Amino acid sequence: MLESLKQLVFEANMQLPEYGLVTFTWGNVSGIDREKGLIVIKPSGVAYETMRADQMVVVDMQGNVVEGELNPSSDTPTHVELYNRFPALGGIVHTHSTHATSFAQAELEVPCYGTTHADYFYGSVPLTRMLTPEEIDQDYELNTGCVIADTFEQGKLDPMATPAVIVRKHGPFTWGSSPMKAVENAAVLDVVCQMAMMTMGLNRDVPPAPASVVDKHYFRKHGANAYYGQKA
Amino acid sequence: MLESLKQLVFEANMQLPEYGLVTFTWGNVSGIDREKGLIVIKPSGVAYETMRADQMVVVDMQGNVVEGELNPSSDTPTHVELYNRFPALGGIVHTHSTHATSFAQAELEVPCYGTTHADYFYGSVPLTRMLTPEEIDQDYELNTGCVIADTFEQGKLDPMATPAVIVRKHGPFTWGSSPMKAVENAAVLDVVCQMAMMTMGLNRDVPPAPASVVDKHYFRKHGANAYYGQKA
Amino acid sequence: MLESLKQLVFEANMQLPEYGLVTFTWGNVSGIDREKGLIVIKPSGVAYETMRADQMVVVDMQGNVVEGELNPSSDTPTHVELYNRFPALGGIVHTHSTHATSFAQAELEVPCYGTTHADYFYGSVPLTRMLTPEEIDQDYELNTGCVIADTFEQGKLDPMATPAVIVRKHGPFTWGSSPMKAVENAAVLDVVCQMAMMTMGLNRDVPPAPASVVDKHYFRKHGANAYYGQKA
Amino acid sequence: MLESLKQLVFEANMQLPEYGLVTFTWGNVSGIDREKGLIVIKPSGVAYETMRADQMVVVDMQGNVVEGELNPSSDTPTHVELYNRFPALGGIVHTHSTHATSFAQAELEVPCYGTTHADYFYGSVPLTRMLTPEEIDQDYELNTGCVIADTFEQGKLDPMATPAVIVRKHGPFTWGSSPMKAVENAAVLDVVCQMAMMTMGLNRDVPPAPASVVDKHYFRKHGANAYYGQKA
Repeated sequence: MLESLKQLVFEANMQLPEYGLVTFTWGNVSGIDREKGLIVIKPSGVAYETMRADQMVVVDMQGNVVEGELNPSSDTPTHVELYNRFPALGGIVHTHSTHATSFAQAELEVPCYGTTHADYFYGSVPLTRMLTPEEIDQDYELNTGCVIADTFEQGKLDPMATPAVIVRKHGPFTWGSSPMKAVENAAVLDVVCQMAMMTMGLNRDVPPAPASVVDKHYFRKHGANAYYGQKA
Repeated sequence: MLESLKQLVFEANMQLPEYGLVTFTWGNVSGIDREKGLIVIKPSGVAYETMRADQMVVVDMQGNVVEGELNPSSDTPTHVELYNRFPALGGIVHTHSTHATSFAQAELEVPCYGTTHADYFYGSVPLTRMLTPEEIDQDYELNTGCVIADTFEQGKLDPMATPAVIVRKHGPFTWGSSPMKAVENAAVLDVVCQMAMMTMGLNRDVPPAPASVVDKHYFRKHGANAYYGQKA
Repeated sequence: MLESLKQLVFEANMQLPEYGLVTFTWGNVSGIDREKGLIVIKPSGVAYETMRADQMVVVDMQGNVVEGELNPSSDTPTHVELYNRFPALGGIVHTHSTHATSFAQAELEVPCYGTTHADYFYGSVPLTRMLTPEEIDQDYELNTGCVIADTFEQGKLDPMATPAVIVRKHGPFTWGSSPMKAVENAAVLDVVCQMAMMTMGLNRDVPPAPASVVDKHYFRKHGANAYYGQKA
Repeated sequence: MLESLKQLVFEANMQLPEYGLVTFTWGNVSGIDREKGLIVIKPSGVAYETMRADQMVVVDMQGNVVEGELNPSSDTPTHVELYNRFPALGGIVHTHSTHATSFAQAELEVPCYGTTHADYFYGSVPLTRMLTPEEIDQDYELNTGCVIADTFEQGKLDPMATPAVIVRKHGPFTWGSSPMKAVENAAVLDVVCQMAMMTMGLNRDVPPAPASVVDKHYFRKHGANAYYGQKA
């Protein structure tokens, strides 16, 4: 069932340690088959060294396990909520990558300080509000998905233009049109956070990049008038 | 004598350079056989590149060498004191890992700023008081063990819920139910310290994570109601 | 056409990931054949893992593609402008290396804090002014080249004595007598920026190195009286 | 001539890139044969990748080349002066390692913040005064050796108890009883500087380690009453 998507999600998960984004088992990648309405996700707490493609777990759009002998990632309800709320998502990643997690712990959004950021994320990477004790106690992982989706809806942000979020006191989630694209965004987000941190260390009050340069860089890589890279 | 424990302690010691936790010979791991009342520990000042399992030293619960041709780690009296005071410990690690040692040098405990910390350590990682000149001059290593144990007892802290300590002006000790688990905690502690340092750099006055999210993350991984990972 | 220069430019591009200067495709190197008036440059958005020497693109001194099936780097007009304005340049590099890019984002020039800097760059590495919205909207990449060249001309700086610039809110460009020398300068610039950042963290108001030591180090490696290294 | 010392100095030089202490050719190691009064040192500006043991240069105690086809390191007069002033030195290292060089650029000595430092360096690692323009203009490298030696003599410091110095606006020199020991001290100094930097970032006004713990750690590893490691 969904063998090619399982293979893809497996390979995307294996990129996390390769890119230096995870310590031990702290991360997970999922992918979705929108036609069948099924999600493939990493099993919970399994070591990357021994993980196999056939251990990926299949869940439906309510998060029920449809296939797989292992428990799915404990963060599965977050992934499911995001797929339900954002129909354009093809893959989702959660990590505790050090620089992005430090922004979460510091309770700061990530300002768009330059063109590297603007090449991938249109404007600041937003920060969620803190979940209430009740939201944490009941359905914590589902509510994490809700608060991410609410952050984008209330801020009138396009999740495909800014495919990342900082979950307060927790860490980053990123996404994209595919599991591989979501992992690329996770890797870029950590570099962007590292550079934002160094920028603030050098000049705490420096303003973000002007709108003109953000627009230029974002739209030379994305959309109808993009001219970066090769024609498909 | 205790060949399998020697092999286990040897392998745990070899993980220290693999995880980037030691420079030269600055670290040691021990393990205990509680039934026999015997401790296996790394020899003192031996290079990791040439160390062998049969060089591990066996000491009793008073720290006397029972077997082994080399001197045991100079920190042996600290390990022995901790095993005597905390009956749940199965393995102990000492390193000079850079981020945790910097908290020791800065004389700061490690606040629980987020879920990564809470997944492994319940609340702040405590800081010991400074030893007196007399305590340093006489039985320094034994007194180091005493001040660690006193810190937990006086703070009414459970050493298995917070399996790490910052020894003031010195560096970290971690422990766990086994030597391997103690090394995992040493690796996690250094990452947690690195992220705490970056968090404080970004937002010096940010509060620690709320109790609700600390409890959620700690107890979804530990204890009777844990649901992270796979059933044993 | 220009096969040996293509090979050289290809190899220089491949040094960027080797030296840890690029993430994904964020960087490019070009070289010039001054006699023929032709420039060889990396194709746009091609992954380093699969790039081949025969994919390098040849453009003329107006930036028109003369040979090659792929689009040239989107930064080609910047390179072309710099070759036209600075006749001594043999190779040019653009990266988003983390430390140099952080100076760009922080909108700071790089002060000459010590001998490591002075061995390669004579005085501060300058910072460009921000492009106007009009300059960004029309011919952005060409105008980036103009503002770099203007910075050197208006500051009466010799581009061969200070072969690097920080483009505000963007990142570094470096150059040299050859593509390889330009890459070496890119690598050195990032180390120099990392050390400048740490210097400012340690002692925010420390002055730059005195002129006497800057002159000594620069001129013991460059010019008629150099005595560092071996006679050619 | 001095083949075994050449081999030793060659191997010690090759450890510099292995330990991450040099970029390109920025470092050099020498060793001395005290009986013969001859010094073996790295040639100037030769790449580590292609360097061979037989390229090491032999100089006398006045710095005259006695054997070797290549120019000796441009820092040779500094090494020679230190061997003449400090009779216990068996090997000397100069690097531009990033953390130690940042202390040089920030014009700060390295305070002894903890036991890691005290295990290798007794008290602060001192900072030299700035050379005068005249001292820089004439015999710069010789005067660098003089100002290092003067720093120890005027501060009544034992160069074998504190085998390292920070040369203002330049970088570190370390030494030891042998070339290998000098390289070990160079590696330790950079880690100690990295941790001192992080310590100051966490708690700018924290005092150095108390004398009692500095003495304990230094003397448990050095001198007649040392008990760290194995009996020789």
